[in-house]
Amino acid sequence: MNSTTNAFLSETNAVNKEAAIDPLPASSKVYVTGSRVDLRVPMREIRLSDTQTDEGPRANPPVYVYDTSGPYTDPEASIDLRAGLAPLRAPWIEERSDTHELSQFSSEYTRRRQRDPRLDSMRFAHGRKPRVAREGANVTQMHYARRGIITPEMEFIAIRENAKRAEMMAQDAELASQHPGQSFGASIPEEITPEFVRDEVARGRAIIPNNINHPESEPMIIGRNFLVKINGNIGNSAVTSSIEEEVSKLTWAIRWGGDTIMDLSTGKDIHETREWLIRNSPVPVGTVPIYQALEKVDGTAEDLTWEMFRDTLIEQAEQGVDYFTIHAGVRLHHVPMTAKRTTGIVSRGGSIMAKWCLAHHEESFLYTHFEEICEIMKRYDVAFSLGDGLRPGSIADANDEAQFAELETLGELTKIAWRHDVQCMIEGPGHIPMHLIKENMDRQLACCDEAPFYTLGPLTTDIAPGYDHITSGIGAAMIGWYGCAMLCYVTPKEHLGLPNRDDVKTGIMAYKIAAHAADLAKGHPGAQLRDNALSKARFEFRWEDQFNLGLDPETARAYHDETLPKDSAKVAHFCSMCGPKFCSMKISQEVREYAREQRVSEAGALDQGMAEKAAEFREQGGDLYHKV
Amino acid sequence: MNSTTNAFLSETNAVNKEAAIDPLPASSKVYVTGSRVDLRVPMREIRLSDTQTDEGPRANPPVYVYDTSGPYTDPEASIDLRAGLAPLRAPWIEERSDTHELSQFSSEYTRRRQRDPRLDSMRFAHGRKPRVAREGANVTQMHYARRGIITPEMEFIAIRENAKRAEMMAQDAELASQHPGQSFGASIPEEITPEFVRDEVARGRAIIPNNINHPESEPMIIGRNFLVKINGNIGNSAVTSSIEEEVSKLTWAIRWGGDTIMDLSTGKDIHETREWLIRNSPVPVGTVPIYQALEKVDGTAEDLTWEMFRDTLIEQAEQGVDYFTIHAGVRLHHVPMTAKRTTGIVSRGGSIMAKWCLAHHEESFLYTHFEEICEIMKRYDVAFSLGDGLRPGSIADANDEAQFAELETLGELTKIAWRHDVQCMIEGPGHIPMHLIKENMDRQLACCDEAPFYTLGPLTTDIAPGYDHITSGIGAAMIGWYGCAMLCYVTPKEHLGLPNRDDVKTGIMAYKIAAHAADLAKGHPGAQLRDNALSKARFEFRWEDQFNLGLDPETARAYHDETLPKDSAKVAHFCSMCGPKFCSMKISQEVREYAREQRVSEAGALDQGMAEKAAEFREQGGDLYHKV
Repeated sequence: MNSTTNAFLSETNAVNKEAAIDPLPASSKVYVTGSRVDLRVPMREIRLSDTQTDEGPRANPPVYVYDTSGPYTDPEASIDLRAGLAPLRAPWIEERSDTHELSQFSSEYTRRRQRDPRLDSMRFAHGRKPRVAREGANVTQMHYARRGIITPEMEFIAIRENAKRAEMMAQDAELASQHPGQSFGASIPEEITPEFVRDEVARGRAIIPNNINHPESEPMIIGRNFLVKINGNIGNSAVTSSIEEEVSKLTWAIRWGGDTIMDLSTGKDIHETREWLIRNSPVPVGTVPIYQALEKVDGTAEDLTWEMFRDTLIEQAEQGVDYFTIHAGVRLHHVPMTAKRTTGIVSRGGSIMAKWCLAHHEESFLYTHFEEICEIMKRYDVAFSLGDGLRPGSIADANDEAQFAELETLGELTKIAWRHDVQCMIEGPGHIPMHLIKENMDRQLACCDEAPFYTLGPLTTDIAPGYDHITSGIGAAMIGWYGCAMLCYVTPKEHLGLPNRDDVKTGIMAYKIAAHAADLAKGHPGAQLRDNALSKARFEFRWEDQFNLGLDPETARAYHDETLPKDSAKVAHFCSMCGPKFCSMKISQEVREYAREQRVSEAGALDQGMAEKAAEFREQGGDLYHKV
Repeated sequence: MNSTTNAFLSETNAVNKEAAIDPLPASSKVYVTGSRVDLRVPMREIRLSDTQTDEGPRANPPVYVYDTSGPYTDPEASIDLRAGLAPLRAPWIEERSDTHELSQFSSEYTRRRQRDPRLDSMRFAHGRKPRVAREGANVTQMHYARRGIITPEMEFIAIRENAKRAEMMAQDAELASQHPGQSFGASIPEEITPEFVRDEVARGRAIIPNNINHPESEPMIIGRNFLVKINGNIGNSAVTSSIEEEVSKLTWAIRWGGDTIMDLSTGKDIHETREWLIRNSPVPVGTVPIYQALEKVDGTAEDLTWEMFRDTLIEQAEQGVDYFTIHAGVRLHHVPMTAKRTTGIVSRGGSIMAKWCLAHHEESFLYTHFEEICEIMKRYDVAFSLGDGLRPGSIADANDEAQFAELETLGELTKIAWRHDVQCMIEGPGHIPMHLIKENMDRQLACCDEAPFYTLGPLTTDIAPGYDHITSGIGAAMIGWYGCAMLCYVTPKEHLGLPNRDDVKTGIMAYKIAAHAADLAKGHPGAQLRDNALSKARFEFRWEDQFNLGLDPETARAYHDETLPKDSAKVAHFCSMCGPKFCSMKISQEVREYAREQRVSEAGALDQGMAEKAAEFREQGGDLYHKV
């Protein structure tokens, strides 16, 4: 551990070449400034090359895409993991003057860790002072929203979600065309306004996870009427990984599009690992506090107590965790419902709480103390992610009594959280065959009054260990289409081992695809713009543009170069798949050109008794065909 | 070329270590004998380890799975690629005595190739004599079916599709449990009988692609009331690959589950490449004859003629191609409909025919000569795969006028093929957003009277070059659920280059997942058995069984071993993902055990005013919990 930690603190690693600080190809970070100078919303601009026409080159406007990578891909920003990121939200939080800085951390445990000299080598040096709501204040975005206040966070999100789409669509009508979607009752506006953001948060249909102690985070929103988001799980286990590896997974996950990350560490030095992650994360960070609580009692679930769990919540809230997975829906009487299951209880948190309930013959302390938990959450603006501790772990257990009984309880708890103006999303399965997925979405919307749904996959079959990013990517795309707000990724290592950095990227990629496929199917305004731009580039053999508009330019280019490495191939009107003579796109362009040139002689077609067709052909064909 | 070819003919390569001739882990090839001794249906038996219980070990019956790998995974079979596979269907074909062997090949082109000494080095040595129907005979399985004849091929298929499921389910009730499916009007029987196979083929709802000149093939069926099948495309291009590589892709593709392969070669020596592939393929082989025809006229579409196309059909039919993709649905008046498209015509065959039509101002010769094509097909039992030459190549072009106009034409052509008792399936898209996929399936069923649908993906977004096995795996699973009979794989190299051996495996894996997810959702009888067996193994920490029941045992094991390589870890009750203390499955088992032991003291719960819960708990919990 120490060796890694020291290495971690070394100059080279600290400026972190591994942190993926280079911009993606042909991309620049741009900022759209809002109503105040310190409200600068980051986006990625992708520059495109010209289209070659008879009249000479025609410029293609740049494409702007939602950017989760934070300052890491901004050459202007100086990245030093030892210093952490700049606290962009600090002024907004301070000027609300409903919070104050504490002279020391409230958590007993935190103070003990701070005093421990053995941790000096791995401790994050530039720790911040914790902030908390003033006596009696409620500092959640939901509370502001319900009082009609539009916060800078809400305006930031509105600008971010629009991603300059109106502008791009005005510039290029071709790119603007899109299929009407099927959104199953979502209410997605043409343009996201700050007021719309406020209203959605006020009614609980969306959440903005941003703890006042995580001012480094760039505001983002999770709700069915916004872009579908994805989460990447990282974190160590007792068996493997180090702080350095976890930070590197974080920067890697957001580079490829992770909207939030969860630190699911269950191994060594959970507290210190989390500090390093939060201080360096521009995206919201979620955790499952019961994991650390269990670690504190050496893994003996029976020894868990409300008091130490409470201290753990405060410990993590003052570090800046943005959302907590709390398995308060697992109740004593639910446990027997899992007895007949093929795979019992597969949620770690769920199984821990089930064990505690049985051992004490008592209702879960998470359930009995739920209102006190709300009191803590509202003082830091930590959002609930109500855990589905009884989610099915196999196709056989899908949509069973235990799963839906817990969902009912999560519905009750949502209403309690909302009474406290505490933001709340609901976690979902799991392993579900395709035809049973929609019932999950429909029941969740009904039980939880449209509180955002956040599902793990679902995996649509159990038979492909090593490929569960695909078995689950199928289910994720479908449930995203049906209305799921955030998709928790599954990596190829699921069920087999702790994901490494490559697995993290593979999982993120599969889920970016699922989320975007869902946005397209829902008919999210402008969602098709990137598809249109990429397909136009593809048809025009603008290879570089095709690579750069894709989710993973480097991989696309590498695959192309495997067979045609030369630069000349980047302008060739074919690739190695079909070769020059068989490129349909090339022939298709020749067809257009040919038809254009032959326009007059088309009349000849008349002689062949195909008057109607030829006329059609001449009219439509003639004028429509353009040489590219 | 020659160097590779010579290498290819060398002893080591001929017995082909690369041909994947080892059985998969814990697997053996078993044969179920039908009503005659020479009707032996291959299956893969997966041996499982025992479940450990208090009463000692309990044996788990082996699991049988559908096996596409042919003799390659049978240690009893001697594999020599130079000799080709044994002609298992030869006696069935001969005893029908409606065919006869020709002294020489009918195709001009074939004879020219045979005479060419420059091809000696690459020619397949053990060529067969071609077979053709006797004068006036129709030798299609559809023709037999409509005359009430149940062929050995049909019986073979019935046994193969059932894959010993009834037997397995009788042995183990737990494994037999399955969710009722949603099949959107399919008519899947509990057990597939030879009579059911006959009836489905007779009404055109399923096809059995097996040319009388490909007696090496193991009969299989494609239809919505059978297991969903997948196809893997291989074949060289002018830019890359050799015969040896292509044969190696074939053996690799079927090892991992390819039900058919298509040889889409467009490069050098197409005729010889195809001969090597067919002689060594236990699965049906499909082609797109227009590719070779175009190659014969040096890529000048305008120079294509019916006569040389006809000779190409006969050339390939006498080699043993089992199904032909024929783009007869692309008609002159359709071409203008593609003018406004973002990506024009992306089907190679479609663009070739469109170019021909425009160049000649004539209707496509494939359309005008369709009846003559049927006459050829019926003499060899080659099945139609009516090509969708106007399928959309981008999300923007999905479900447009051109696509559906062609589908109408394919419906007409289906009826013509059926008048000739020629088997027929219909090709489908392409690039389609999720919410527009079902319309494709519904229209195809309506236009083509339930003739089997065979789609490429569909890809649900355009923005992920390098990951199109995933963008399309999502759409493939969904359309398979809706009723698509065969899914044509897409590899990660799609749009970028010619797939290599690794890409072939990746594509096959994504599509095996999609096909199985579809079978589960349709409620195909017994489809859930493998999921149940694998999940049970997972819950019981039978790691080896979990690996071996998966689609790719080697990868699953490798991922597990990355972090826990020791053999001891193969019996450990945790993995590196969560570590020992946080394994939910372990805790869940402890919960069951705990509850069982505490059964009596559960009564204590009563004192805590939870009578109802505790009672429930005692009743259900007590007896239901079993120590694993």
